[in-house]
Amino acid sequence: MSTGKLQLPIALDAMGGDNAPACVLRGAAMALVRHPGIKFILYGNRYILEPLLIEMPTLKAASEIAHTEIVIAGDDKPSVAVRRGRNSSMWMSIESVRDAHTCAIVSAGNTGALMAMSKLILRTLPGISRPAIAALFPTLRGECVMLDLGANVESDAKDLCRFAVMGDAFARAVLGLSRPKIGLLNVGSEELKGRDEVKEAYQLIKTSAQHLNFHGFIEGNDIAEGTVDVVVTDGFTGNVALKTAEGAARLIRTYLKDAFMSSVLSKSGALMASGALKVVKDKLDDRKRNGAMFLGLNGIAVKSHGGADAFSFCNAISVAVELVAHDINTRIMQEVKLSGDEVKTAEVKTGEPS
Amino acid sequence: MSTGKLQLPIALDAMGGDNAPACVLRGAAMALVRHPGIKFILYGNRYILEPLLIEMPTLKAASEIAHTEIVIAGDDKPSVAVRRGRNSSMWMSIESVRDAHTCAIVSAGNTGALMAMSKLILRTLPGISRPAIAALFPTLRGECVMLDLGANVESDAKDLCRFAVMGDAFARAVLGLSRPKIGLLNVGSEELKGRDEVKEAYQLIKTSAQHLNFHGFIEGNDIAEGTVDVVVTDGFTGNVALKTAEGAARLIRTYLKDAFMSSVLSKSGALMASGALKVVKDKLDDRKRNGAMFLGLNGIAVKSHGGADAFSFCNAISVAVELVAHDINTRIMQEVKLSGDEVKTAEVKTGEPS
Repeated sequence: MSTGKLQLPIALDAMGGDNAPACVLRGAAMALVRHPGIKFILYGNRYILEPLLIEMPTLKAASEIAHTEIVIAGDDKPSVAVRRGRNSSMWMSIESVRDAHTCAIVSAGNTGALMAMSKLILRTLPGISRPAIAALFPTLRGECVMLDLGANVESDAKDLCRFAVMGDAFARAVLGLSRPKIGLLNVGSEELKGRDEVKEAYQLIKTSAQHLNFHGFIEGNDIAEGTVDVVVTDGFTGNVALKTAEGAARLIRTYLKDAFMSSVLSKSGALMASGALKVVKDKLDDRKRNGAMFLGLNGIAVKSHGGADAFSFCNAISVAVELVAHDINTRIMQEVKLSGDEVKTAEVKTGEPS
Repeated sequence: MSTGKLQLPIALDAMGGDNAPACVLRGAAMALVRHPGIKFILYGNRYILEPLLIEMPTLKAASEIAHTEIVIAGDDKPSVAVRRGRNSSMWMSIESVRDAHTCAIVSAGNTGALMAMSKLILRTLPGISRPAIAALFPTLRGECVMLDLGANVESDAKDLCRFAVMGDAFARAVLGLSRPKIGLLNVGSEELKGRDEVKEAYQLIKTSAQHLNFHGFIEGNDIAEGTVDVVVTDGFTGNVALKTAEGAARLIRTYLKDAFMSSVLSKSGALMASGALKVVKDKLDDRKRNGAMFLGLNGIAVKSHGGADAFSFCNAISVAVELVAHDINTRIMQEVKLSGDEVKTAEVKTGEPS
């Protein structure tokens, strides 16, 4: 979306990611074309960034550099990063959101460190005890939102219920749906099946988040099927499911590539169908869906894939812009309040004689 | 493999599955060609089976029918099936394994009911408290074994350690590997990451199952990558991961089909590359990997996909034949004993002053 003349300031962790800062800057330059109203504060080493910006006059004009020479490495442990990375590009860029110098922060750096720092600096929204990582997944019907993708390794029923509420707000904002269908990931679609916390979450969502369009349980195959718009699960299962699907997609691509290269005839066939194959490649292009949001924090933090190229990083910036423009956190708080009130009502009701 | 003149008797739940009994019988007839040494006891309704067998003289000669009119429905709850299905085709066929009338049972019926009945009738092997469902998954390097795929919704560290041991025995038997590489599914490859029970299982496998070729933690994408030969996980995560991957594969197939049909040029290209595309289709053909084993039971029970066709069901029978021929349960018990002894040794060692 265009942000018009709003001049949204976005914080970029210019030093985070495998291809930083080059792809961060090139991605930012692309994002400027897409969203002319934004500007950037680039957190990173001035002596590395300035020479690169010479070649990018438009970006240079729309950016300022906040200098730091400290960088969080991709393999730093979150606890170490939090202790020792106080003045790192990642830390400072998150602080700029807390201090309202920027509206959102985008980083392609170390996920664990980014999550730990974001939780520490931004804190969670009222009523949310655990943030969740949300991202988009391609389906037969378009796209769905899936969360949590690994912010937590354990989630109880209440967490899962909050994820449902946050996923709903995210789907309304990013997918533009008026009434997203919410599904709870389980090993069967019957009410009696599955883990205790998942069965409890089912009941909790039904009773305390009645404003949601709750479909009930779904199974793994329903994700790509597009049975629902929001897939709710714990961070362990979500992370494994997402990465397993990515692995399966890579396997099929390799099979196809090998098969097409196996003979002159198949090579020619692939060449003739290259337009069609490009369409498929585009649909499966993870770069288009780059930008996972840390939902539930008191500020917008978007995580780009660590290996993002410029196009991919630009898309992560777009996610941040969408979330700012749709005021995602106000929406989440409204929804949490709604379901919180319902929780109380449900509790009062339970206490009454029947 | 050929079973020579062994005359292995296999019990078939002739009435279980969406396409029963027709596909069960046709699959059995195909299996007879593949494994001339086997014979069948067909559990099911004589008045339905006999007319079908008239057309299959070879199968008829190698089979006997054990009559029952009771059938477990696909949507029966396991608890109900166990209570009311005592003389069903499923129940009787499992009993035949317990009573050593047959060497293995194959069913395409209700998974939950089959698991519940198998546990009740066959019991678990000494040293195993929870059975696991194991099946094969395609990888870039061939195939891997994955377990548990849904026998349990929760698993503690000890269960996961037992799954590793059973998966090792399964991979040796079915994949013919001399030293299968074992991986524990987690959300990161570092020792510190993940759920407590998974971290504990890591230590337990390292200390108490030292005979295993333990690779350590793997992530979801490693499954299709073929990083390991045996993927160990709890039944909830395994079930979700498997179904998510199946869904992703279906999504890509649909994308490809739609793309190829989108123009005359791409249609012609697909036609020219049809040989290559068939190779890919074959590699991804789930029917070839049909037949999930319930590992850890005191008897061999193989679950075919409910919607199996004859070819698919025949492959499930082949899994049963392989497992019998390789004496899977003796292998498992030997390995459990080995790791059990090591557990004790490890415990003693821990008790000693260091």
